[in-house]
Amino acid sequence: MREIKLTDDQYSYVFTPYIEPVATVQPGETVALYTMDAFSNKIVSNKQRAGEVFKTLKGDNPQTGPIKIEGAEPGDMLKVEIIDIEATRDFAASCFNPNFGGLVSTRTTRMLHEPLPDPCYIYKRDENGNYTYNSRLSFKWEPFLGTIATSHAVEVIKTISPFENGGNMDVPDVKPGNIVYLPVSVPGAYFFTGDVHAKQGEGEVCGVAMEITAKVTLKFDLIKHHKILWPRIESPTELMCVGSAKPMEDAARIAYCELLGWLVELGWDKWEAYQAITQAGKLYVGNMVDTVYSLVAKIDKEIAYRK
Amino acid sequence: MREIKLTDDQYSYVFTPYIEPVATVQPGETVALYTMDAFSNKIVSNKQRAGEVFKTLKGDNPQTGPIKIEGAEPGDMLKVEIIDIEATRDFAASCFNPNFGGLVSTRTTRMLHEPLPDPCYIYKRDENGNYTYNSRLSFKWEPFLGTIATSHAVEVIKTISPFENGGNMDVPDVKPGNIVYLPVSVPGAYFFTGDVHAKQGEGEVCGVAMEITAKVTLKFDLIKHHKILWPRIESPTELMCVGSAKPMEDAARIAYCELLGWLVELGWDKWEAYQAITQAGKLYVGNMVDTVYSLVAKIDKEIAYRK
Amino acid sequence: MREIKLTDDQYSYVFTPYIEPVATVQPGETVALYTMDAFSNKIVSNKQRAGEVFKTLKGDNPQTGPIKIEGAEPGDMLKVEIIDIEATRDFAASCFNPNFGGLVSTRTTRMLHEPLPDPCYIYKRDENGNYTYNSRLSFKWEPFLGTIATSHAVEVIKTISPFENGGNMDVPDVKPGNIVYLPVSVPGAYFFTGDVHAKQGEGEVCGVAMEITAKVTLKFDLIKHHKILWPRIESPTELMCVGSAKPMEDAARIAYCELLGWLVELGWDKWEAYQAITQAGKLYVGNMVDTVYSLVAKIDKEIAYRK
Amino acid sequence: MREIKLTDDQYSYVFTPYIEPVATVQPGETVALYTMDAFSNKIVSNKQRAGEVFKTLKGDNPQTGPIKIEGAEPGDMLKVEIIDIEATRDFAASCFNPNFGGLVSTRTTRMLHEPLPDPCYIYKRDENGNYTYNSRLSFKWEPFLGTIATSHAVEVIKTISPFENGGNMDVPDVKPGNIVYLPVSVPGAYFFTGDVHAKQGEGEVCGVAMEITAKVTLKFDLIKHHKILWPRIESPTELMCVGSAKPMEDAARIAYCELLGWLVELGWDKWEAYQAITQAGKLYVGNMVDTVYSLVAKIDKEIAYRK
Repeated sequence: MREIKLTDDQYSYVFTPYIEPVATVQPGETVALYTMDAFSNKIVSNKQRAGEVFKTLKGDNPQTGPIKIEGAEPGDMLKVEIIDIEATRDFAASCFNPNFGGLVSTRTTRMLHEPLPDPCYIYKRDENGNYTYNSRLSFKWEPFLGTIATSHAVEVIKTISPFENGGNMDVPDVKPGNIVYLPVSVPGAYFFTGDVHAKQGEGEVCGVAMEITAKVTLKFDLIKHHKILWPRIESPTELMCVGSAKPMEDAARIAYCELLGWLVELGWDKWEAYQAITQAGKLYVGNMVDTVYSLVAKIDKEIAYRK
Repeated sequence: MREIKLTDDQYSYVFTPYIEPVATVQPGETVALYTMDAFSNKIVSNKQRAGEVFKTLKGDNPQTGPIKIEGAEPGDMLKVEIIDIEATRDFAASCFNPNFGGLVSTRTTRMLHEPLPDPCYIYKRDENGNYTYNSRLSFKWEPFLGTIATSHAVEVIKTISPFENGGNMDVPDVKPGNIVYLPVSVPGAYFFTGDVHAKQGEGEVCGVAMEITAKVTLKFDLIKHHKILWPRIESPTELMCVGSAKPMEDAARIAYCELLGWLVELGWDKWEAYQAITQAGKLYVGNMVDTVYSLVAKIDKEIAYRK
Repeated sequence: MREIKLTDDQYSYVFTPYIEPVATVQPGETVALYTMDAFSNKIVSNKQRAGEVFKTLKGDNPQTGPIKIEGAEPGDMLKVEIIDIEATRDFAASCFNPNFGGLVSTRTTRMLHEPLPDPCYIYKRDENGNYTYNSRLSFKWEPFLGTIATSHAVEVIKTISPFENGGNMDVPDVKPGNIVYLPVSVPGAYFFTGDVHAKQGEGEVCGVAMEITAKVTLKFDLIKHHKILWPRIESPTELMCVGSAKPMEDAARIAYCELLGWLVELGWDKWEAYQAITQAGKLYVGNMVDTVYSLVAKIDKEIAYRK
Repeated sequence: MREIKLTDDQYSYVFTPYIEPVATVQPGETVALYTMDAFSNKIVSNKQRAGEVFKTLKGDNPQTGPIKIEGAEPGDMLKVEIIDIEATRDFAASCFNPNFGGLVSTRTTRMLHEPLPDPCYIYKRDENGNYTYNSRLSFKWEPFLGTIATSHAVEVIKTISPFENGGNMDVPDVKPGNIVYLPVSVPGAYFFTGDVHAKQGEGEVCGVAMEITAKVTLKFDLIKHHKILWPRIESPTELMCVGSAKPMEDAARIAYCELLGWLVELGWDKWEAYQAITQAGKLYVGNMVDTVYSLVAKIDKEIAYRK
């Protein structure tokens, strides 16, 4: 299996269609790629202060990419099976980033309060495979990809942002065993991923998950001429759509409208699909901290595939 | 066990501390009460049109209450164990209510579009205990209380509204086997409940669940001198807080701030609690259709009770 | 001219249809009424701390009312001409109220920050009729009614809240020379007013204007059988509609939809009215601090009355 | 005076630092530039349907730029005096764009309604200099620049978007006689402008103003080493700050926080500045239709410059 391993200066801090691909993969190919953590691997000790570290960074969430998907054209749908995520170091890092997070004054929800403290939290992997800061803060390895995206047709977007083609959604269902479907907006798709989280709760409320470096195994495929507007996720038992917007209700509206649309694609009557998502849909918050919020609407395949 | 059964004209369409209790219960007492459905039992056929039905109603969500809790005082916390919910008829009713719902123009999210169609959907209980409209729309019996509240200290509030003391939260975790804790704001608490749903997805996105009449068995208790600001829910494995507000991110902020506060009550350091809810919290949407939205933040008891 | 002067214990801290009127007026009658300030007249010195004062209050914005309007019936429109507002003391009071305001963590936009400082600001009337705290903070007398409402049909609402029938809108155009139109929802209308501001900017961003006691002269009239859903304001040159909701865009949507509806009442085609408010409407923020935000949409009468 | 006149294919549909400047100007220089209208000049008749026209466009709001400002460096502030705006044709065009606008279902506020009608409105200049569609829809020439921006440091942004460096703010105060100050984020600033409106109401509620081609005279200057985070506007009598965000209250928070910061720059105490904007600030909606909303907070210079 081919491996994609970048030098530090090759990582991208933007989702962009305008730079040279770091690799080209064929539809049907499985590759392993390596990812930096969200802080460019710069938080390594409980003694650091996050605010100081952030001043030294080129950006958030360095991305492995762009990876060109051979033959991808606008209007296709990129299928990405997440085969595996392996940690490539024995600790995960979190912190409180000043003016960032769901329960603090931020750059967009501006308030007159002073920033809160900005400690770092190093979670070490223990003999049970858990990541542990202390007796209370100790969590299982439940990794996923914080960012996954294809390029926007014309925009260049910072890697802190979720958007129509994915991006920094911070959705825990982007995990091994699941499939992510993304819109293709430029020839070659220009795929990016990174920002692996050892674990994260729904909402990522302080703004920083348990950030870790990783080796990620992905299988790529193309569904030709299948235009979608927003990311989809398929688990063994569920269909999901992700919407990213502010205010949060707009993200919820997108996610449920897209899920309703998926049911209609599967043969449902529009209004019966509206009943189905009302009575049996699920709706959780992926992130409530990024430039826009990401919500995930889902329904059981057992229901979706009924005739 | 005592039963509380109202005549049709005794049901209340407001949460109010200003009317006579329909019953008084003792702390520690278990009672069974009967509830009307959200439409005062007026939707009974697929041939009705919801818009016409709604014009004939006194209000939404008729409530069984107020029930006075003997000895309850402002600053206490009311504990309500949901022992059982039994259907008292063999069908559930849903519909699309014009200008109501999460994906349509509403009274507050005003748009220039004409209202959408307003069909009714009658789900009949079948031999397997499922509620079935047709081969696609058929769902299991997973009942819960759409509304549960104590009275506000001074306000009278329509029963369509969620608020600090509960109300029409439409949160599926208000179900048998779980415990709901509510603030007490007036002497006697003045408890209300109703709006039983045979099943509802997260968000209740069209605005109308599978509405049914029911017999509800509840056990009441008082935790004296334990002031809370918003409802809490305890399942066998999880602690939850509900926040209700608009925009949706404000509901999320309330829910997570309250959950963080609960951890601090349990002995956690404030900042470590912020880490815990970030890495291991859950956050789902109860309703995205009512006067304000209700979000539920939760954490595993296994984590919350760590030392 | 009749005067309505309450004793301190007669002021109401809720908008309610359930208490006895303090007075009854006839359509066509002009009355003078006296109002307390928003803090029940308790802030009188720069040395007080607002947080301490608020703990002693029964509520915010004590109201003069309910005033019964003889003959008013649900579906009528109440016309209130604001003839005059005179100060009844020689200072106005402001402050920063902890956990209240547009640029701080609040009860609904919950954050983890500690509350900000809570000083009081006493503005003394000087020889020029200006209200002056110091050389920078000195403003002209531009008084208006912070709260003006008829009762909700069934709800009792705290006097901090704006709502469909008016309430604590904090809209500077509720001023002498203008006319306010309010929906009538109960027999007798049950009118309330209070919370006079010596001056306030748009948004009332810290949450507290220049609060003052006053003598208010109002002329009441009824427009029979003219149902409106939200308050309207008429100045000598403009027509205005007020919407109150969260998020703020929902308040804007209400205000502009209502203004469009007013143009349609005046004979406009719906789509041409949409063009008119797009090209010539005005839209400002009354309050961005109360339980819901109030936005004011307006258009010149010169345009509105065109044929 | 130098003129900058592009060929049709030179106009840009993104704000970008990555393409060659169309011109370079010196600090202190005054230039005249020519702008296309928001629809690339494609709406010319009342008989067109906007939805059909939009399918043929490369994007919205074609921009004249980038214009390189000699010597501009990140951390400087670009000063742009709007000397004059002259129409270069005798009509302005408006329309209703399907799925765009403040009172309709949109790409982000997704609803299940069908799109509304999409007529075009051609306003002809009459002998009085007014722009007239019919006897009701006839408005004065009150031109301003819908878009004005410097480039983002790393992002490429569609010209439909407002952002920190300006963009498609649709703020009527960007007009002749006023000065706009913009952050400089890249060497040379890379200035863009376009989207001239013959007139527009506050909020631009249908999403389309009275769009026109124009000759725009601007004087550029640099204030070195004066970092600002968001656009500022200075009129002969007022200081203004623009914030662009969703939900709308976040735009309001940014605008007022920035204005407070400007007062602090001028020597004000932070808390007294908070009082000043509370009692004497103005706050109106520039746009309620673009990817984010733009709000304008202002205060009189007479107050701001007090000692």
